[in-house]
Amino acid sequence: MTAPTTTRADCLALDALDPLAGLRTRFDLPDGVIYLDGNSLGARPRAALARAGDVVAREWGTDLIKSWNTAGWFDMPKRLGDRLAPLVGARPGEVAVTDTTSLNLFKALAAALRLQSEGATAGRRTIVTERSNFPTDIYMAEGLSRWLERGYRVRLVDSVEEIPAALDLDAAVLMLTHVNYRTGYQHDMAELTRLAHEAGALAVWDLAHSAGAVPVDLHAADADFAVGCTYKYLNGGPGAPAFIWVPQKHQARFDHPLSGWWGHASPFAMAPAFAPVAGIGRALCGTQPIVSLALVECGLEIFEATDMEAVRAKSLLLTDLFIDLVERRCAGHPLGLVTPREHARRGSQVSFTHPHGYAVMAALIARGVIGDYREPEIMRFGFTPLYTSFADVWDAVEILKDILDRNDYDVSAARGLVT
Amino acid sequence: MTAPTTTRADCLALDALDPLAGLRTRFDLPDGVIYLDGNSLGARPRAALARAGDVVAREWGTDLIKSWNTAGWFDMPKRLGDRLAPLVGARPGEVAVTDTTSLNLFKALAAALRLQSEGATAGRRTIVTERSNFPTDIYMAEGLSRWLERGYRVRLVDSVEEIPAALDLDAAVLMLTHVNYRTGYQHDMAELTRLAHEAGALAVWDLAHSAGAVPVDLHAADADFAVGCTYKYLNGGPGAPAFIWVPQKHQARFDHPLSGWWGHASPFAMAPAFAPVAGIGRALCGTQPIVSLALVECGLEIFEATDMEAVRAKSLLLTDLFIDLVERRCAGHPLGLVTPREHARRGSQVSFTHPHGYAVMAALIARGVIGDYREPEIMRFGFTPLYTSFADVWDAVEILKDILDRNDYDVSAARGLVT
Repeated sequence: MTAPTTTRADCLALDALDPLAGLRTRFDLPDGVIYLDGNSLGARPRAALARAGDVVAREWGTDLIKSWNTAGWFDMPKRLGDRLAPLVGARPGEVAVTDTTSLNLFKALAAALRLQSEGATAGRRTIVTERSNFPTDIYMAEGLSRWLERGYRVRLVDSVEEIPAALDLDAAVLMLTHVNYRTGYQHDMAELTRLAHEAGALAVWDLAHSAGAVPVDLHAADADFAVGCTYKYLNGGPGAPAFIWVPQKHQARFDHPLSGWWGHASPFAMAPAFAPVAGIGRALCGTQPIVSLALVECGLEIFEATDMEAVRAKSLLLTDLFIDLVERRCAGHPLGLVTPREHARRGSQVSFTHPHGYAVMAALIARGVIGDYREPEIMRFGFTPLYTSFADVWDAVEILKDILDRNDYDVSAARGLVT
Repeated sequence: MTAPTTTRADCLALDALDPLAGLRTRFDLPDGVIYLDGNSLGARPRAALARAGDVVAREWGTDLIKSWNTAGWFDMPKRLGDRLAPLVGARPGEVAVTDTTSLNLFKALAAALRLQSEGATAGRRTIVTERSNFPTDIYMAEGLSRWLERGYRVRLVDSVEEIPAALDLDAAVLMLTHVNYRTGYQHDMAELTRLAHEAGALAVWDLAHSAGAVPVDLHAADADFAVGCTYKYLNGGPGAPAFIWVPQKHQARFDHPLSGWWGHASPFAMAPAFAPVAGIGRALCGTQPIVSLALVECGLEIFEATDMEAVRAKSLLLTDLFIDLVERRCAGHPLGLVTPREHARRGSQVSFTHPHGYAVMAALIARGVIGDYREPEIMRFGFTPLYTSFADVWDAVEILKDILDRNDYDVSAARGLVT
């Protein structure tokens, strides 16, 4: 922002100029809600309701088993993968939408360790990651390491500055989440991948908070494997199947333990020995949840009306505006910005600490401003340019200001499950 | 059947006496279709359409992130597991509906091998199963064996008679599918589990073609682990999440490599070290596909209007009638019964071979009788007592007879994907 935006009218003026403003009508958001939690669960595309009805009533109810062919159920993981690919700099035939992020990470890590188990890197036994990574990524790496035929270990670093030193002669894989779920910090994917390769390690990226949020170019970064989520910024629906990227350079040797029949070269030959299919299909395992999977398409369609450069431009305007307004309008309150001010290091969310962060967030939600909370003290606000307006930002900050100015939050409120 | 049923009127009379006849109205089946493929994809419960609309429009669209708590999304795998439990002789807190059958089998097998890796069985390295098992079960066992810290192997037996000899001093686990997907042969779960235990092995059962199809009593059989499918006889919807059973006796030591955050003792504490939750929750891994998962409940609700003894009684009447009518009405045609005549050894499907099985099945489907085909030569007909009538059986056999009598099938038809 070159000049500070100081009034709601300024925000409305920004909305009037916003080339993405029209896309808000492609979503169905409840009245009276400012939804700043698309980093956790994306809003519902309007098309999703009719699509769910069609999959359930016609494809399942009427066409029954024929839909595996006629409705393209069996090919859906790859078809959706091809639609998602441009958002992360992947090529056709390199992405599948399937299973969960945790499971896809397990496959990618296993494949990376297998690739490293030959040649000069055969002795390497360490997966390097951050202590602040989303826990399930660490848990899956632990689970894999603990069970593999040779003893692997997970090494946790406490800051990005420690990564170069951790990439020692024992480092087999650098596994990072591109944008941190708590802080919104965005790694330099190309530079860290370069460091990993220079050190003889492979780079595995989790794009859970990146896909649909920030521009990603996996090929330009020369990354090795990636996984990600469709139910956050891609608006695929609650718990919608995740994605996995296996670049062509690694497909022929992509090998993982979850060798189910959907990854077989001839799944309906019912052969008793596993033979992986060529291409991204070998990342598949079992039968996919078709209704949830089909809804992913409704989210992806909306991105085809724009591009990630436009999304990113608005995202930075929204997050700059939010930071600026919170710091000016709520000055004097004990709020601490956690998210980087530097654009290149920022995802599409803004996190502030507050000593009573949980209670303040509960008060915000009660007044229709939906963000969420992460221990310790962190209030998270996600900004999704497809459906969030500049006026939304203004209004959210005014409500936050009012809550803080009047101490209108209950510090004794019981803590429920916050997702 | 004590006396042969010889006319359609006899079948209508059976329908009039059928205590389950009223349940057919709980399903929405297309007009003009006799659906005998519920062993592959169960028909759609009427309630599923409204439920899908409610999950998508209200729970996702309106309540958004709050639904993880208010709509019980986070607890759904266990809540549905408790509803499913009585159908397989499981107790509350022992079943979770989650992931895919393939993945759940991977967890169960891994846990079984881990249990066996201590004490007198520590040297055992073999998973015994049947060559005729559903391939993904064999593939997952292969994948696990190939990757584990010590060298395991999968031993395939060619008949049930070979199982006792295969349960040698190297046998760690006996992994069987209770009802065979091609033949409809039903194993004696209690007897084979007893043999496994006597030989020092654990017994892991796949109930994909059993749950909702035949009475199962996992505790009476003293089984060790089980997995199964919700989208066949349980009518949960295409690719709906599968289930896993971990009995209380094994829960404290249930340990598998797919240690994702949904299996953590405190998933929202975001601790960097994995600590499994007590109970069946440790069989969970990543975030589940909520829309598909929610529809499983619509199928389970229907079973609560009856019980598996009533379902089984009608299933045997239906399959007896089908076998009897095919053998009498289509006598002279080269049909071979593959499914056991003995009730105790029969699931809820009937398979017949025919030299042109694929073409005959295609002709049946074209005339509204939907079964399916499995190599080599096998026509499968599934009987789902909740929505299949005795008149359906009569009509299906008359159409089969007409096709065969008139040679009204195209042996040169291209073979598409048959699921």
